[in-house]
Amino acid sequence: MSGWMAAASSSWVAVDPSSHFSLHNLPYGIFSTAANPTPRPGVAIGDNVLDLSAVAQAGLFSGPVLSSSSQCFQQPTLNSFMSLGRPAWLEARHTVQRLLLHLPVGYHGRASSVVVSGTDVRRPWGQVQQAAGQAPAFLPSSQLDFELEMGCFIGTGNELGSAIPAAQAAHHIFGWVLANDWSARDIQRWEYVPLGPFNSKNFGTSISPWVVTPQALEPFARPAPPQHDPAPLPYLQQPQRSNYDVALEVAVQPAGGCAGETVVARSNLRTLYWTMPQMIAHHTAGGCNLRPGDMLATGTLSCEGPLGAGCLLEATWNGSRPVELSDGSKRTYLEDGDTVVMRGCCQGDGYRVGFGECRGTVLPARPL
Amino acid sequence: MSGWMAAASSSWVAVDPSSHFSLHNLPYGIFSTAANPTPRPGVAIGDNVLDLSAVAQAGLFSGPVLSSSSQCFQQPTLNSFMSLGRPAWLEARHTVQRLLLHLPVGYHGRASSVVVSGTDVRRPWGQVQQAAGQAPAFLPSSQLDFELEMGCFIGTGNELGSAIPAAQAAHHIFGWVLANDWSARDIQRWEYVPLGPFNSKNFGTSISPWVVTPQALEPFARPAPPQHDPAPLPYLQQPQRSNYDVALEVAVQPAGGCAGETVVARSNLRTLYWTMPQMIAHHTAGGCNLRPGDMLATGTLSCEGPLGAGCLLEATWNGSRPVELSDGSKRTYLEDGDTVVMRGCCQGDGYRVGFGECRGTVLPARPL
Ligand SMILES: [Ca+2]
Ligand SMILES: [Ca+2]
Ligand SMILES: [Mg+2]
Ligand SMILES: [Mg+2]
Ligand code: NI
Repeated sequence: MSGWMAAASSSWVAVDPSSHFSLHNLPYGIFSTAANPTPRPGVAIGDNVLDLSAVAQAGLFSGPVLSSSSQCFQQPTLNSFMSLGRPAWLEARHTVQRLLLHLPVGYHGRASSVVVSGTDVRRPWGQVQQAAGQAPAFLPSSQLDFELEMGCFIGTGNELGSAIPAAQAAHHIFGWVLANDWSARDIQRWEYVPLGPFNSKNFGTSISPWVVTPQALEPFARPAPPQHDPAPLPYLQQPQRSNYDVALEVAVQPAGGCAGETVVARSNLRTLYWTMPQMIAHHTAGGCNLRPGDMLATGTLSCEGPLGAGCLLEATWNGSRPVELSDGSKRTYLEDGDTVVMRGCCQGDGYRVGFGECRGTVLPARPL
Repeated sequence: MSGWMAAASSSWVAVDPSSHFSLHNLPYGIFSTAANPTPRPGVAIGDNVLDLSAVAQAGLFSGPVLSSSSQCFQQPTLNSFMSLGRPAWLEARHTVQRLLLHLPVGYHGRASSVVVSGTDVRRPWGQVQQAAGQAPAFLPSSQLDFELEMGCFIGTGNELGSAIPAAQAAHHIFGWVLANDWSARDIQRWEYVPLGPFNSKNFGTSISPWVVTPQALEPFARPAPPQHDPAPLPYLQQPQRSNYDVALEVAVQPAGGCAGETVVARSNLRTLYWTMPQMIAHHTAGGCNLRPGDMLATGTLSCEGPLGAGCLLEATWNGSRPVELSDGSKRTYLEDGDTVVMRGCCQGDGYRVGFGECRGTVLPARPL
């Protein structure tokens, strides 16, 4: 599951409260997978394993000890890593924590390609590497994925050079939508170091058509996942952190119309580790100004449970365990003609506050 | 200076040979005057500005496109004019030339934080790691840097799902500016994996005020650096790749005014490896749409030579070899009060086509 490295970058990994392997634990072990049977070091987090050999290969161990010694993670035992001593052990823990926890990791997307529910989305072309060590080729993505997210529209912004404190940030939120951050995993894998996603994300983002206000959502506020190890830096501390209890689902419907929808993911906005006010505080911490109409998305909303993965990358264990649809067909990634439908809803006492749906059909890549 | 319209029609405007804004240049910008504070489009000529709103009001745009669209010059931005496309741009240029000259003269961050030359830039706060293996702290950046770049404005864009071929991309370029992509190296080092720069770059980007057109720059086109190993993928292949020969420099002036400027970098747009048409082809290859007014920047323009580094990170060898200013003080990175001035110019035969300057002074970080 080297692919899980990418999932880790979403800065939130769902861990059941009863798990021994919480984010406070981070124990080391040796593991292998069907897709890659080479035994190698990893860190257990809930039911997942963070592949340290992949972290090393991506050059993410950048501290003074491990930057020149990260081959210790390309070994079938932990001995080599153990022998490096405490500075290396602390460095490795901090790197893993940083990947998972220290800062909300974000990137700037393109506003031009945000489209409303019902708009078809064309499969993108891009540079992909077909086999390790090979030169890239320019091809239609063969690993087109959805990402179950929610988007938040900024109402009132801030002046350039000022910042929005985490405690005040909620007042700047005009409202919320469902968001599908379509992602081309093969393009992403090739391009994302060191400047982040570009062509793998910029070809389209779908949102639901109605902006639901905080006033409507307030009755559904619930405490956010706790944060104390590490404690957030002061600028990220928000009193009474909460998220809305929005039940979310993703369904896929193949082309043709005979087959019905199959729900492939169920999650909830409650699982968000960095709340939107914290993300706004982070975005503006350096003085960057937000403006009315700017949209911030949550990142993939995954949670525990058999359908808890918010994207196919995670649901199919990096393409190694296909998902089955109701017509018997299987998916590792999306096929042309597939329609992805996201829905989200808060259940009140005899009423609902919901988002309608966010729907998009995959069109074939344009001819070259 | 709307009154200057009359002077312009006298068909002769004196322009100093050293001026960046010769009659061969004719760059577009937004200006206002004490007498008429409404921001509106103009063309810089020497020390003067030709008021395009007045030219339009006088009915002087009489070509097939602009005769019915000249309200685009009664706007506070150039976007409306940009969106009309190349026939309109050429018509405008010809109209201005005709007004001025009876002789034949040949001739892709956050948009919210792009500021015009002369705007102060506040040192950003952000997460930095003070020593390897340590937890991060939230502090003002102590490694604030400039990046010498040029920015390119998209005039006409493309439809979402389509792409702009490299061979046609030049026709989508409305014009060029100098750009300082201010960067906080300590924030960047901590945050950039795996989603790329965020707070380290989004606090500000300065640009020069006048958009210089391809028509003015064409005489300075020179072959671009060769690309054959590896050969670009077909979608990046552009016949007759060229860049403009724009001599660039960066000067730093400390606070106080006693000390003069010290030139700390000299480079040239010619060194650009991926030409802007290639970058446009890449940006749109996956179907992402560009829109009128979008700006793409080149990335740091470094070249060979003792002053060839286009940013302090490179010039000081990552902070290990300070640069000396004319007042004897030293810089690894920028200090509060430092003014960074970028200039760029093409030298013609007895005339210049230049960009004026892109200037910004570093303000101290805001109090916490
Ligand atoms: Ca997207
Ligand atoms: Ca910048
Ligand atoms: Mg995403
Ligand atoms: Mg840059
Ligand atoms: Ni961008």
